[in-house]
Amino acid sequence: MYNAICLISCPDRKGLVAKITDFISSNNGNIEHLDQHIDPQSKTFFMRVEWAMDDFNISRNDLDKSFSCIASELGMNYKIYFTDGKPRIAIFVSKLSHCLYDILLRVKSGEYNCDVPLIVSDHTECQSIAESFDIPFYHLPKNSSNISNVEEQELDLLRQYDIDFLVLARYMKIFSDRFVNEFENRMINIHHSFLPAFAGKSPYSQAHARGVKIIGATSHYVTEQLDSGPIIEQDIVRINHSDDVETLRCKGRDLERIVLSRAVRLHLAKKVLVYGNKTVVFD
Amino acid sequence: MYNAICLISCPDRKGLVAKITDFISSNNGNIEHLDQHIDPQSKTFFMRVEWAMDDFNISRNDLDKSFSCIASELGMNYKIYFTDGKPRIAIFVSKLSHCLYDILLRVKSGEYNCDVPLIVSDHTECQSIAESFDIPFYHLPKNSSNISNVEEQELDLLRQYDIDFLVLARYMKIFSDRFVNEFENRMINIHHSFLPAFAGKSPYSQAHARGVKIIGATSHYVTEQLDSGPIIEQDIVRINHSDDVETLRCKGRDLERIVLSRAVRLHLAKKVLVYGNKTVVFD
Amino acid sequence: MYNAICLISCPDRKGLVAKITDFISSNNGNIEHLDQHIDPQSKTFFMRVEWAMDDFNISRNDLDKSFSCIASELGMNYKIYFTDGKPRIAIFVSKLSHCLYDILLRVKSGEYNCDVPLIVSDHTECQSIAESFDIPFYHLPKNSSNISNVEEQELDLLRQYDIDFLVLARYMKIFSDRFVNEFENRMINIHHSFLPAFAGKSPYSQAHARGVKIIGATSHYVTEQLDSGPIIEQDIVRINHSDDVETLRCKGRDLERIVLSRAVRLHLAKKVLVYGNKTVVFD
Amino acid sequence: MYNAICLISCPDRKGLVAKITDFISSNNGNIEHLDQHIDPQSKTFFMRVEWAMDDFNISRNDLDKSFSCIASELGMNYKIYFTDGKPRIAIFVSKLSHCLYDILLRVKSGEYNCDVPLIVSDHTECQSIAESFDIPFYHLPKNSSNISNVEEQELDLLRQYDIDFLVLARYMKIFSDRFVNEFENRMINIHHSFLPAFAGKSPYSQAHARGVKIIGATSHYVTEQLDSGPIIEQDIVRINHSDDVETLRCKGRDLERIVLSRAVRLHLAKKVLVYGNKTVVFD
Repeated sequence: MYNAICLISCPDRKGLVAKITDFISSNNGNIEHLDQHIDPQSKTFFMRVEWAMDDFNISRNDLDKSFSCIASELGMNYKIYFTDGKPRIAIFVSKLSHCLYDILLRVKSGEYNCDVPLIVSDHTECQSIAESFDIPFYHLPKNSSNISNVEEQELDLLRQYDIDFLVLARYMKIFSDRFVNEFENRMINIHHSFLPAFAGKSPYSQAHARGVKIIGATSHYVTEQLDSGPIIEQDIVRINHSDDVETLRCKGRDLERIVLSRAVRLHLAKKVLVYGNKTVVFD
Repeated sequence: MYNAICLISCPDRKGLVAKITDFISSNNGNIEHLDQHIDPQSKTFFMRVEWAMDDFNISRNDLDKSFSCIASELGMNYKIYFTDGKPRIAIFVSKLSHCLYDILLRVKSGEYNCDVPLIVSDHTECQSIAESFDIPFYHLPKNSSNISNVEEQELDLLRQYDIDFLVLARYMKIFSDRFVNEFENRMINIHHSFLPAFAGKSPYSQAHARGVKIIGATSHYVTEQLDSGPIIEQDIVRINHSDDVETLRCKGRDLERIVLSRAVRLHLAKKVLVYGNKTVVFD
Repeated sequence: MYNAICLISCPDRKGLVAKITDFISSNNGNIEHLDQHIDPQSKTFFMRVEWAMDDFNISRNDLDKSFSCIASELGMNYKIYFTDGKPRIAIFVSKLSHCLYDILLRVKSGEYNCDVPLIVSDHTECQSIAESFDIPFYHLPKNSSNISNVEEQELDLLRQYDIDFLVLARYMKIFSDRFVNEFENRMINIHHSFLPAFAGKSPYSQAHARGVKIIGATSHYVTEQLDSGPIIEQDIVRINHSDDVETLRCKGRDLERIVLSRAVRLHLAKKVLVYGNKTVVFD
Repeated sequence: MYNAICLISCPDRKGLVAKITDFISSNNGNIEHLDQHIDPQSKTFFMRVEWAMDDFNISRNDLDKSFSCIASELGMNYKIYFTDGKPRIAIFVSKLSHCLYDILLRVKSGEYNCDVPLIVSDHTECQSIAESFDIPFYHLPKNSSNISNVEEQELDLLRQYDIDFLVLARYMKIFSDRFVNEFENRMINIHHSFLPAFAGKSPYSQAHARGVKIIGATSHYVTEQLDSGPIIEQDIVRINHSDDVETLRCKGRDLERIVLSRAVRLHLAKKVLVYGNKTVVFD
């Protein structure tokens, strides 16, 4: 008992919804969720449709081939997922452990349906946490002189562990364009500010210096340009004049955990479509 | 250039989405928005679909008849609206004017696409506001002894002005079951608490006495049972120990305006479906 | 029956609170509110203290002179206000009326204790609103060539009407440094973004282009540098991919009204102290 | 280098702030924080004052005796704390571990300045967590027939471990009045609803059945009456028609952790004063 999920984007035209739903229905699939959006500026059509695979006339293995017929006819980009799959996540972390802990506890409690076979860090602070969850931990320190070498090792590990996507859980190093492109729309970062405000270093110090009354956190896909990728989720918390940088960090930690956890949940549920530098989030 | 909107609910079964979208598509309609939900407990299917009527093969006048064929075949409840229609709203108000003003300004600014041909009140405080917006104002004081008589007058006015739905903008009198049933799912009330907490009288005094740290407002359809109808929208604002009942009222007024305005906006956009004592809000 | 409010800032040292409260208490004043903050970086002391003037031994007229003795001894900046005063506000507005309306209705309902004897605009759209509230309206169109001339007229009006502070209720013109300095910490602006993100022109278009999931509004004192003055209040509202720039504007209007109204309320209540480019808000 | 914190409540009268601050100042104490509130209905005065103990003329041991002189003269209830103390917390938990984990991680990261020498549970699900944090775990199953016996054991443990206050981190059993009174204003519970809505059993099911658009969580001191004690903190999260009871539980878990963690933080910082069934929270 599992479902198929199809994510679709293409130029808008008449009859798209009907064609797709007719394909599902005429093959005896029951649609459980359907979300659709048309971007009026670019006249692009986006769709997420999920249907039950029991009694469906097309087998799991043949589905992609069958669907590709109507897809090519209509100029669709699409990707099909099955809900019985368990995505494999690698978590990258530096010194701060709160986001790492948060994700591991959500996996352990069953809130996330995924595996975490691998934790990578440029520091050793989180090693004991990895061990307490029985997850292999790789300590790969990184600096400007060894970056391409280390990234090679990282990519090897990601292949070896058959990783589907990466979560940067307060990982403070930058990746090369080549690495980023390898995991396009499959690397989720948490930045501890309300982007585009306070991109780059020390956002809490920047926020304190500016005297804002609200701080934020932003989860986004990583792109070549720092802290500028498609935003998946943001949230904020109120602060006031009595909060120093340290209490901002403390309040921010709760925010970072929540915002990153929502982005990972949405990504796992295949509810995020990227177009240009933006996201459609069907939630 | 206008759209048709169809709201549908029925027992869930395979092929519903395909049948409906095929009907639209095969008649040359382009679907601009489609939202769908299945309530897993009652296995009920809900849908809101909106499509462009230009180039549509079925005329506006014949649409209902044409659609009724597939609807009866599939056991659907449905209702069709057109976006060029201007719903006619009657506003009921007592002494406090903030919600009344808020709605009138949204209508005036073009944020709401509707007409307000009629304001009814059991007091005279808001008469001058009605006049400044050139809207007929009827002062109909109501008490336990004259209620059925006054409701008769109100119903006459609502018919005479061809009113589609009622907004109770801090109207503090109760309606009879008969009146309520006449406007089932067409009477929107704003209650100044986070329902079901603090139903009934003086919710801000109740909230203050209980020492809550957050107050709320709730917009709902009116049913026979006081403050218990299907909830359309709620929101909250933080308070603290230094807020007395008067500052709660003041903070609450902003909340009431926002929550009521969102509920009216959703209702005008035909984005609310009622089932049992709950709502599906496609937003 | 009225209170005195004293706002104080000075270098921190031992005994400040005791000296000030002893001054009030030994003259038979009952302290009703006292808020205090020490900025640990600059070691600056901030205080707001409010006490009842009935039975107070020092008359209203002598209070400033009496207080100046301890103030000069301790190196204090201070300012004393009385709660029976009615500040006189000038509202500057361009085409959009929602913030103007909001403030006028709060004054009318008694929520704000102030007078609005004057509305200034570079357009005529809001003239009829001013008239309906019986407030003199001055239409002073402004462009790069006439700005110093027009500002002269504006300053004359502000003097003539004995204006205490200015509210820029979506007034879209920039003031000269000279004008700004004349009303230092007495000009409140509403910017329709979550500053420092999207400063300058068309923040909703900027927000839409960036694909943020939350939009904000910021109320701040005007300084020589555009959209960079001390922030008084900010708030946000959630948006999603289906919101176009027009719906952002619509959602933003509600936010702008709320944020500006809170900033004006705080300023009227003498709850805001400015230091450097930040504010202490005692609320 | 540590501070003294004094929490005070008494009938309001002139000169209270001056007397207290003069006591501190004349003994060479520098006031770092001072918050004060007067409840206008009961004419009760509340104060939290914190000052540096270095250079203070009165020793830690003599302070209470010294202060009691002015306190008895003015009819004050008061309690003095020192910031170098480490309160000792016992956590009570049933099956669900998310709040337990959350508190333990905050203690471990240094966010909370306290010790957790003891975890008590009526189930065994959380035993391994206690062990992984090296904290003694006592499994004390409780039912209607053994309750007084088990409470005796619990009280013995609390005495033996010298516990200052209790955190009920989703502990689902009820305490006797006798137990509650022993820890009056020293037992913090998290209830998974926006109280007073949905008190008692299964609040998420209740919320789902009612069709609310927002769910909440409430942290409060435990009193003899179930879910009715003085509220310390509340917060909410938005839901919609597509959330079933299980997703409410999931969203609620994040809320419960945040709300409980804030209440514990406020209690640890001695920022909460209880009066009647309400709290003054100086934050």
